[in-house]
Amino acid sequence: MGPGPSDLYPEVMTALGLPGVGHLDPVFIELMDSIKAAQRAAFQTESAHSFTISAPASAAMEAAIANLVEPGDEVLVCINGVFGGRMAEMARRHGAKVHKLGFDWGQPVAPEKVEDMLRQHPSTNLVAFVHAETSTGVRSDAEAISAVAREHDCLTLMDTVTGLGGIPVAMDEWELDVVFSGSQKCLSCVPGVAPLMVSEKARERIRSRRSPPVSWFLDLQLLAGYWEGNGRRAYHHTAPVSAMYAWHAALARLLEEGLEAAWNRHRKLSDELGRQLAKLGLERVVDPAWALPQLTVVGVPDDCADEAAVRSRLLSEFGLEIGAGLGDWAGNVWRIGLMGHSCRKENVGRCISALAAVLGRPQPKDEAAA
Amino acid sequence: MGPGPSDLYPEVMTALGLPGVGHLDPVFIELMDSIKAAQRAAFQTESAHSFTISAPASAAMEAAIANLVEPGDEVLVCINGVFGGRMAEMARRHGAKVHKLGFDWGQPVAPEKVEDMLRQHPSTNLVAFVHAETSTGVRSDAEAISAVAREHDCLTLMDTVTGLGGIPVAMDEWELDVVFSGSQKCLSCVPGVAPLMVSEKARERIRSRRSPPVSWFLDLQLLAGYWEGNGRRAYHHTAPVSAMYAWHAALARLLEEGLEAAWNRHRKLSDELGRQLAKLGLERVVDPAWALPQLTVVGVPDDCADEAAVRSRLLSEFGLEIGAGLGDWAGNVWRIGLMGHSCRKENVGRCISALAAVLGRPQPKDEAAA
Repeated sequence: MGPGPSDLYPEVMTALGLPGVGHLDPVFIELMDSIKAAQRAAFQTESAHSFTISAPASAAMEAAIANLVEPGDEVLVCINGVFGGRMAEMARRHGAKVHKLGFDWGQPVAPEKVEDMLRQHPSTNLVAFVHAETSTGVRSDAEAISAVAREHDCLTLMDTVTGLGGIPVAMDEWELDVVFSGSQKCLSCVPGVAPLMVSEKARERIRSRRSPPVSWFLDLQLLAGYWEGNGRRAYHHTAPVSAMYAWHAALARLLEEGLEAAWNRHRKLSDELGRQLAKLGLERVVDPAWALPQLTVVGVPDDCADEAAVRSRLLSEFGLEIGAGLGDWAGNVWRIGLMGHSCRKENVGRCISALAAVLGRPQPKDEAAA
Repeated sequence: MGPGPSDLYPEVMTALGLPGVGHLDPVFIELMDSIKAAQRAAFQTESAHSFTISAPASAAMEAAIANLVEPGDEVLVCINGVFGGRMAEMARRHGAKVHKLGFDWGQPVAPEKVEDMLRQHPSTNLVAFVHAETSTGVRSDAEAISAVAREHDCLTLMDTVTGLGGIPVAMDEWELDVVFSGSQKCLSCVPGVAPLMVSEKARERIRSRRSPPVSWFLDLQLLAGYWEGNGRRAYHHTAPVSAMYAWHAALARLLEEGLEAAWNRHRKLSDELGRQLAKLGLERVVDPAWALPQLTVVGVPDDCADEAAVRSRLLSEFGLEIGAGLGDWAGNVWRIGLMGHSCRKENVGRCISALAAVLGRPQPKDEAAA
């Protein structure tokens, strides 16, 4: 119950048990097509350009930046946590002139500040932001940020690693250009693959680059030969076949449950978790208007002298992982995930019961049995 | 029985069935330490710098180049197949001045030609070559190439994706600097992770770079915080936990069998396969002095008008994958793998029997029962 990886869905475990197959086998190519379609449904987009990167989500982030940014491009990166900072660093390495727009830890990206920055830097051609900041448990208003970016003729790049499957992601309705996620958060798949969705407008910018990106492994023009080749798929690299089986199973599970049902489950159990945490004297630190249901952030209580010892005891005595605070919040908060398969009623009870025991609180009545 | 992925070892399948765990969990950190040690044994090195890249071997190749090459560096890349060409392209993208040393398809890298090139280009500081070319089934003399490179004060970068576990790889004895491999060839693990071994000399060059590599995901200085941090490991990206379990199991299987025993198994069954193929009129095209036992390359026989149809029938009627020719050899050869778990006596029989049936040859007597 940390910030991910979450517990694997049983369907994911079953998929991992299937025998291997070649990465160019017709059966595998069919699986890729099915994954592409399922990703479209999950991101609510009709875009033809549906990729899965053969590496964890940080590589999908770098793929997005490596392909969208050309040396000298001006890029606005919104930073309200660790992962916005990571995008800024990547954009810098890939040759961008980066305009950093910072926000206080725990705050969402403010669209009006984005607008101010774009007025100040009119040559900016890309706005990058994090939809669901894993380091702070904060959601930002993707639709509003996207609207501002489009007014200023910028493409948008959105990190929704922790968002997908836990809160709405509407790529087409919000008119986003490049959106990526991870496998190991609200989809409860193994880490190691990451979906990357690209709008036609972004695909065209990538097609018309002056020079290819520095990274060969993440070059979308080359990857398109493997993921989009009509009829015949060209070998680029050896895809992680078993992880792709697992990813296919995780997407199928999400779509079978239904997007709305999954969002509601995360919301409902998160509300329950928050109520129970409050009874232990653990208060949520993110404004409810922006708090992610899949990742609850609470302050370390005043009577707890050693927060690391609490996490260590939870792990060793109760087999329960919760996340530490990062950055400005290191040592001050805990991050409790209810993601995908981990987002179950019994887990709320287990977490509360374990926390009560370790913190020396009385066991809440209605959860004591758990 | 193509050029990889090979069939998964049963131990790999068992490992994939284990429940997930966090990428910073103490149990996972222990597993990483065990993987590092097992990789040292497999590559026959004492070097402390043992990494596993969280992506397929092409990403390990790019990691090696991204970290070793600084813009303007002169790099000699030996090209005797597809993967040498890939390294040259990556080195170019990462800013190197690339000296390409080409060889005829099917030939090994000639150390004396390497020497000539290094005399012509005395500022070269890195020699890159492929130990076991998957596109041609050719082994090159790593020890001799390394000796020449060292005489000219160059570091060495060796791709042994198809070599490890099938033929000797002696990183320390051959005094190599950076060596990488893959998981899905002679180790019969799932694709998606790749070992990358770095000598102290290469580690020092990376430490003293003038600027970090363009790639954040593959930056070894950052990865060292996760793989080498003493006591405390710093989060960099989310490692592919289940694939790491599988990789650990595959390495353990190799070391349990013993390196020499594994090499002998590949040699013995490859000899048997070659003899049986000859009875069908299929002749090996690589000089036996340089032929890889784990990947046998035979000419398409004259009476076969449509080689793709043969491969297609082998797959659909016999569930058997063999590899097509690539590059100069496209349409002219087949590549038959006997790698790791696929390298079993019964597979030799199955392959010969299926090929005889599809090519309309009489079934060889001693294999007809298989």
